[in-house]
Amino acid sequence: MSVPNPTRRAVVALGGNAITRPGEAGTVAQDLANLERSLEAVVELLDRGYELLLTHGNGPQVGNQMIRVELTRGKAPHLPLDVMVADLQGGLGYMIERVLRGKLRRRGLPQGVCCMVAMVEVRADDPALADPTKYVGPFYGEAEARALAADHGWVVKRDADRGWRRVVPSPDPIAVVESREVRALLATGTIVISAGGGGIPVARDAAGDLVGVEGVIDKDLASTVLALAVGATELFILTAVDRVMLDFGTPRARPVATLPVAEARRHLAAGQFPPGSMGPKIEAACRFLEGGGERVLITHIDRLPEALAGETGTWITA
Amino acid sequence: MSVPNPTRRAVVALGGNAITRPGEAGTVAQDLANLERSLEAVVELLDRGYELLLTHGNGPQVGNQMIRVELTRGKAPHLPLDVMVADLQGGLGYMIERVLRGKLRRRGLPQGVCCMVAMVEVRADDPALADPTKYVGPFYGEAEARALAADHGWVVKRDADRGWRRVVPSPDPIAVVESREVRALLATGTIVISAGGGGIPVARDAAGDLVGVEGVIDKDLASTVLALAVGATELFILTAVDRVMLDFGTPRARPVATLPVAEARRHLAAGQFPPGSMGPKIEAACRFLEGGGERVLITHIDRLPEALAGETGTWITA
Repeated sequence: MSVPNPTRRAVVALGGNAITRPGEAGTVAQDLANLERSLEAVVELLDRGYELLLTHGNGPQVGNQMIRVELTRGKAPHLPLDVMVADLQGGLGYMIERVLRGKLRRRGLPQGVCCMVAMVEVRADDPALADPTKYVGPFYGEAEARALAADHGWVVKRDADRGWRRVVPSPDPIAVVESREVRALLATGTIVISAGGGGIPVARDAAGDLVGVEGVIDKDLASTVLALAVGATELFILTAVDRVMLDFGTPRARPVATLPVAEARRHLAAGQFPPGSMGPKIEAACRFLEGGGERVLITHIDRLPEALAGETGTWITA
Repeated sequence: MSVPNPTRRAVVALGGNAITRPGEAGTVAQDLANLERSLEAVVELLDRGYELLLTHGNGPQVGNQMIRVELTRGKAPHLPLDVMVADLQGGLGYMIERVLRGKLRRRGLPQGVCCMVAMVEVRADDPALADPTKYVGPFYGEAEARALAADHGWVVKRDADRGWRRVVPSPDPIAVVESREVRALLATGTIVISAGGGGIPVARDAAGDLVGVEGVIDKDLASTVLALAVGATELFILTAVDRVMLDFGTPRARPVATLPVAEARRHLAAGQFPPGSMGPKIEAACRFLEGGGERVLITHIDRLPEALAGETGTWITA
């Protein structure tokens, strides 16, 4: 694994904690400081000869922008979710690119870095569009949540014991609109940042035109669609745990070092992985491997070097 | 001019009215409808064999985002101007790309379209950084403006008779950080949208790293820097007037159909063009031609086809 191979192309899916760590307000200064740390291991992948495509989450940032948009209704134009996701691809892409360019410059590496805005297409008849399940934005009291729902056509639900939130659909990604352009740039050796926040959700209307969708696409599932479209060999899903656990929360709980894709599918079907957290990551991994990818690594954002050395992380293999 | 020439590369700088027309609130629906109209003529350039790079303004949108950020201080993290410009490159780039992709699809044209986030470098010792002149954001009463200035370290000034506003520096662009990547994509035939809002302003710190600058770069000057970096032959500045006027506001006022660059420079030095409006456009045109560009067109966003047919517009030539 330590022999550089110039033909390998990896997609690195940065989890939310790569940018905003738990408990932080999510200021720009905090986010930049976190990125300095998070991207250090990513740069090491270049030494191993990888071409790199980065995707990232936007949870805290889109929550903050929803607060700004909500609290200024009537004073500034309303922004739909697709435009907010697009805005954050620009802002977070800039921050990631700037930090990464600094690291490359200090190491004397020649690669360019750029952020390409990306729409991710979903089916206009995806059943998920009629069944909102993804919590977004701030918490409200029940009365306020119900009033907002009535005013704006939202669906709101109680989120555990912490209050009420808006829920939006999380449809299944089927294609990244800009995959041809992302692929062309990767071929020049450029590190590309794209499809942040799961991509800007769009669907085709009756005339065949792309229109915005008021929803949020799972970042890891979108990363898989893009990874397969650009012919990536590996998908690195960087998150908040060192390894995938089986029988999590039971006395038989145990970490897994390697998992063949057929076994991962069986565990997924058996309900081993919760829908809101590890479930979509395992689903994304399975789709990547079933679609022709070679291997997937799931590990903690801070443990990538050790995982590449075989000391931690869960490798899911074809 | 009607003979297609596959080697021509044009930068189209879309003025603010390409996206939000005067008097509009600037809702996403309005902006998309305006883009449907504004981009129609841009697509016609493809029939003439041009490779296209689009830049655009962000005035109304950044003003609205400043309102959102200001009114939610303490409730959502503050965003500096560089991050707001980056956000809007994402959101407006998405809208422009989506509208343009629809037009290409309906015409059966093969080109891809993408938006690349772009930083524009300014000198850390640019004297403009110490002398804020560019009005941004909403109008305030004098007392409120002075309080905001004291609280946030802003500089505020009276803007004509309409109230008080924040002023920020407008430093001179010297390079587009991503010009190599933009050029690589243009070479694949992709229509690239980049450097919106004049680009994300950055400067190098003492260590050589890029840091954000609290300022706004003139869109047309930034377009020239990018146009020269990608080897564009033509620069089309689309704005709110059909033609450049000489002796504007006097009885001798007259439109100009063609203007050699040396003459444009003389008029500029003689104060023929106001600093806040036509001045930077003529300066941008002169720099483009002095840097090796072939010709510049300045005309109304709705009159591009007539201008290309020689019926209106001002052509500035090398």
